[in-house]
Amino acid sequence: MNLTEINNLLPFLLRRENVARYEGGEVIMCDRRKYPFEKLFVHCSDVESSAQAIEDMVTQGGGPQYVALYTMAMLAGQVADRSVQHQEKAFIKARDRLVATRPTNTSMARHLDKAMGVVKSALGNGENVETELLSWVESIRDQSYQRHVTCAEFGSSLIEDGDGILTMCFAETSFLLTLALAKQSGKDIHVFTPETRPYLQGARLTAPSIHEIGVAVSIITDNMPTHVLSQGKIQKYFTAADLVTLDGHVVNKIGTFQNVLAAHHHGVPYFVFTQSADKLKPDRSSIEIEERDPREIKLCRGTPTTLQEIDAYYPAFDITPPHFVSGVITQFGILSAYDLKRYFG
Amino acid sequence: MNLTEINNLLPFLLRRENVARYEGGEVIMCDRRKYPFEKLFVHCSDVESSAQAIEDMVTQGGGPQYVALYTMAMLAGQVADRSVQHQEKAFIKARDRLVATRPTNTSMARHLDKAMGVVKSALGNGENVETELLSWVESIRDQSYQRHVTCAEFGSSLIEDGDGILTMCFAETSFLLTLALAKQSGKDIHVFTPETRPYLQGARLTAPSIHEIGVAVSIITDNMPTHVLSQGKIQKYFTAADLVTLDGHVVNKIGTFQNVLAAHHHGVPYFVFTQSADKLKPDRSSIEIEERDPREIKLCRGTPTTLQEIDAYYPAFDITPPHFVSGVITQFGILSAYDLKRYFG
Repeated sequence: MNLTEINNLLPFLLRRENVARYEGGEVIMCDRRKYPFEKLFVHCSDVESSAQAIEDMVTQGGGPQYVALYTMAMLAGQVADRSVQHQEKAFIKARDRLVATRPTNTSMARHLDKAMGVVKSALGNGENVETELLSWVESIRDQSYQRHVTCAEFGSSLIEDGDGILTMCFAETSFLLTLALAKQSGKDIHVFTPETRPYLQGARLTAPSIHEIGVAVSIITDNMPTHVLSQGKIQKYFTAADLVTLDGHVVNKIGTFQNVLAAHHHGVPYFVFTQSADKLKPDRSSIEIEERDPREIKLCRGTPTTLQEIDAYYPAFDITPPHFVSGVITQFGILSAYDLKRYFG
Repeated sequence: MNLTEINNLLPFLLRRENVARYEGGEVIMCDRRKYPFEKLFVHCSDVESSAQAIEDMVTQGGGPQYVALYTMAMLAGQVADRSVQHQEKAFIKARDRLVATRPTNTSMARHLDKAMGVVKSALGNGENVETELLSWVESIRDQSYQRHVTCAEFGSSLIEDGDGILTMCFAETSFLLTLALAKQSGKDIHVFTPETRPYLQGARLTAPSIHEIGVAVSIITDNMPTHVLSQGKIQKYFTAADLVTLDGHVVNKIGTFQNVLAAHHHGVPYFVFTQSADKLKPDRSSIEIEERDPREIKLCRGTPTTLQEIDAYYPAFDITPPHFVSGVITQFGILSAYDLKRYFG
């Protein structure tokens, strides 16, 4: 499948140009906080506004990484006429600021480090840093989409006609392509998506995107997956991952592990899509779970859910241990969570 | 403890007069849909408006039963000067309408049947039906509060100093009295309450009520209990029940069983408060799970969480099998879920 064909299979939110793009000296991304009620784009014209957009969850999942990389290219354009020393300092500062936005998302951090390598080499060779960075980013995006298709082929091979499918949060490109391929091959499927509080990624991003590609989808609240599993309505559970450690721990949106326990109890396998395990994260103890402002828990799309004086707690991710993972879907196949070192170590 | 002392230990929402009362020919109840943002009372002056108030969840948990019983008394006053035959017909019609409001809440149905017995006997003896019904309702309420205190004594005996406690939805009087007694005896405790979508009973009713009696409480979203359990922050899990079958299946707000699985995985016991198992509900197959309008899933306090054209699914309760229940807290003690027949059969 070529890149255009892939893009055409995807819903609005996951089209390459809508996730993130660099255009007219600005980094542009679809505002996932407003979607699907409004299709707005946020334009960032300096490092700080990109960092804030990521922190404020204008984009999430696979988005922050490309926003961060395009931001490095934007910075390159802005500092191109300064001394090499000044440029180096600016890139280091930008990298640090961007890495700090979402501490659990280590893929962004690793790619920013690779970007620093591209910067260094371009500066050393007297090349145009902006051009070099952009061409590198586009080429890794091309490769990433091809890996998504490979993952989706593995994913859809697991789905049988008539399957009910559970997901959590917004499992993005590999998952949506999986559903698109399953549908193309004539499989009748029904997806249940928990709404994913507090940001409602399941209700706002996943459900409309699945609906858009013509697959049946029902929203449930986050307290319902176990009951729906107990009714026999679900045969497979798929999520993406914010981080997979080298020893097979899956870090994803809070609630993922809760659903895994329920799926396990009801004999339903759990599969996770990832482009790579993180070789800098050997095990559970190396994971940092982001805790966000508890005030966000007490709002739903801006509407208070309780009184201001009531306390709340907001850990943003949870950790699924490897013995609960039925398969890690990667470009190399549907791997055992205990065999990741061989591919990504 | 006398009835006034009990009432004084309770938060606003659970004070006897605020749950439901019969006054000036009207049934009056605190509007739990608005709480804690507004402390409003709904006044019902006929059977249909009471039935609609229950269906619309103006009150829930332990509330509907007393609203239904006071409604029978109100009806008695309204039809007192009609023929006995007319009165009998009116009571049967009212009973049927009220039972149909919440099919899973069989305690309300059983008490309505007992009320029909009171009606029959009063009509037969030529007594004032309204007076007889009211005096019966107040006396069973008195007994119920005494049972709540007994349950709370058992409940608080299970709590150790420093315990973190998980709950779900709004576990009402037995649970709140449990916390009040634990606090009185100097135990330092911290409650985590999932917000309980879609109606947010956890965020709106439970958290402010616990805060009001001076016990530490944090709201989490419904996708978080497993993670909080995995952090070792929780030592006990307590809920109420909408229905306990004679063979020990616990029917409660959806999400209850999901948290039970998570508690079980993390070695945390699950205790359920009930005033009685239902002798007309022998087992799982006798349970009817209410399915509510799926449009309610797509709103949070009136704010849409997704697009109108997206499908949703709304089962309102789930079922915890007896082998996951560590103890059923009743007036008779902390019972095994497998020993209920002996007390309630």
